[in-house]
Amino acid sequence: MEREQTIILKNKPKIVGFYAIAGPKEGKGNFGPYFDYVMKNDHFGEDTFEKAERKMMETALSGVIEKSKLTAKEIDLMIGGDLLNQIISSSYAARAFEFPFIGVYGACSTMAESMAVGSVLIDGGYCKHIVCCTGSHFSTAERQYRFPLELGNQRPPTSQWTVTGAGACVLSKEGDGPHISSVTFGKVVDWGIGDVNDMGAAMAPAARDTMLNHFKNTNTKPEDYDLIVTGDLGKLGAEILVDLMEEEGYKLGVNYGDCGQMYFKYNQNTLCGGSGAGCSATVLNSYILKKFKEGQYKKVLFMPTGALLSTTSSQQGDTVPGVCHAIVIEA
Amino acid sequence: MEREQTIILKNKPKIVGFYAIAGPKEGKGNFGPYFDYVMKNDHFGEDTFEKAERKMMETALSGVIEKSKLTAKEIDLMIGGDLLNQIISSSYAARAFEFPFIGVYGACSTMAESMAVGSVLIDGGYCKHIVCCTGSHFSTAERQYRFPLELGNQRPPTSQWTVTGAGACVLSKEGDGPHISSVTFGKVVDWGIGDVNDMGAAMAPAARDTMLNHFKNTNTKPEDYDLIVTGDLGKLGAEILVDLMEEEGYKLGVNYGDCGQMYFKYNQNTLCGGSGAGCSATVLNSYILKKFKEGQYKKVLFMPTGALLSTTSSQQGDTVPGVCHAIVIEA
Repeated sequence: MEREQTIILKNKPKIVGFYAIAGPKEGKGNFGPYFDYVMKNDHFGEDTFEKAERKMMETALSGVIEKSKLTAKEIDLMIGGDLLNQIISSSYAARAFEFPFIGVYGACSTMAESMAVGSVLIDGGYCKHIVCCTGSHFSTAERQYRFPLELGNQRPPTSQWTVTGAGACVLSKEGDGPHISSVTFGKVVDWGIGDVNDMGAAMAPAARDTMLNHFKNTNTKPEDYDLIVTGDLGKLGAEILVDLMEEEGYKLGVNYGDCGQMYFKYNQNTLCGGSGAGCSATVLNSYILKKFKEGQYKKVLFMPTGALLSTTSSQQGDTVPGVCHAIVIEA
Repeated sequence: MEREQTIILKNKPKIVGFYAIAGPKEGKGNFGPYFDYVMKNDHFGEDTFEKAERKMMETALSGVIEKSKLTAKEIDLMIGGDLLNQIISSSYAARAFEFPFIGVYGACSTMAESMAVGSVLIDGGYCKHIVCCTGSHFSTAERQYRFPLELGNQRPPTSQWTVTGAGACVLSKEGDGPHISSVTFGKVVDWGIGDVNDMGAAMAPAARDTMLNHFKNTNTKPEDYDLIVTGDLGKLGAEILVDLMEEEGYKLGVNYGDCGQMYFKYNQNTLCGGSGAGCSATVLNSYILKKFKEGQYKKVLFMPTGALLSTTSSQQGDTVPGVCHAIVIEA
């Protein structure tokens, strides 16, 4: 028998504030008008790209706390992570506020992982206010995972573009805003994709697994949601997911989208689209939550995926496992 | 006013099983007789040290599940992390069992971080059985964080020796075993230590912060515990913590110890002692929990610390922030 992975939340943990900051290229993309802050350049006034990434997270944290009409002292806990080795962007951002800190790592699924852990802690009455935050930076990711930017390497057609941006939200016991009604912690799934330039294909099986589990546990179907949104499967991965779900008897229609696929405009040369922990984080914490505020969305299934590899695992011949954590947001 | 970081658990999540595996040097150390399995060599039959580290975690996972008289399918969730970039040891170990997986990163505090998150999930009734697992490997840590082993670099007197070992435990709603009565998620604290070979000094302020917060919130004092144990402050860091606590009016006596300080024998040439995510994980999941079984311990404050740096943050001139998560285990 299949394990029931979905946790139903009874006490409606609320999303009382959200904030997104992104880079200039992202600002020119499809979600640009929805971001709270668009940086003029990728350095953000810092000496290194890593420090710029950290500053983005700090900006998202102070921004969301202010928008939630709270002070940093009122935040019980920060939950977050990022793509850099030892999640330094998040840890150093937590340092700036002296937050009690749960560091998590779920690659590009980190926003959902953070919010899933956070909403359970709020739902159970263990905390009053939790801030969740994640981000990524094109230039730090390129040089850590791939090549120095100066090399000017060619990008294969299945590759994606790491989003420069950070998103944060505050989860609270009480207050105004949509609530999280269920969370599904995803299994680590590996169908044997070894191409590190084809993350969409590597992660789609994890999205399939979590989506199937979620639909079965909650007795829902795709039509029950105003939006079903994956994180950064990209153009190819999203197509694969649609096919995989069709094989299982689920038809993903026009209410399905992928943040990575939708992120950039056609002429922005990002091949299969956006990726990175900041991809789904900035879309959720701008466009999606604003559409809740405007009353357009009543029920959204947010399920970013992550590829759980490292350069070492690739160099040692390992394939790429994926994970997908899901949360349901309701008005 | 200081934030209350301690979460009191009402429903007594139980530790129903524990398992520790360690390397040959560790097997000859002070906790050697208590480990479930001591490896004959650091390769553990694998081509690379990284794969050996993963196999240790897989061994700890299957070992603890068997000792808990459960099957992998009955485990709702795995929570864990490790020191390798992108926590690949944990993610790939989770893949082997197809566990739903919350990846966490708290450097050497990861065992307590995992158990703190896990015990809240059990306490709130969200899961029945959760497995927590972490580990580290001397040879993977050296080459990732420091120098290739082949260089034979000298070690400064403040340095510590990364433990090769993995520990795992199963937390359950019901069953036999000691329970977790409270958890304290620690703040990220940085007092400006920049020497990456002096982790004990960098992490002691975080231990101080969490310990003070814990004592105040629970209205307890050092004498109320059979054992207060930090993770890997080492000889120097443990002395610093004793001094820092004395300044605050708390006298840590013979019931205080540090896993790293106690790990190796005097003639094992580890300078300030053991370190790594596997350090406190293997001590807890062997010696400490066996002493509970034998009735020697009734109440233990387990509070490993983590240094939240990366090689990149050090290279860019950052100081070393620490974090310390605490859990109280009671018979």
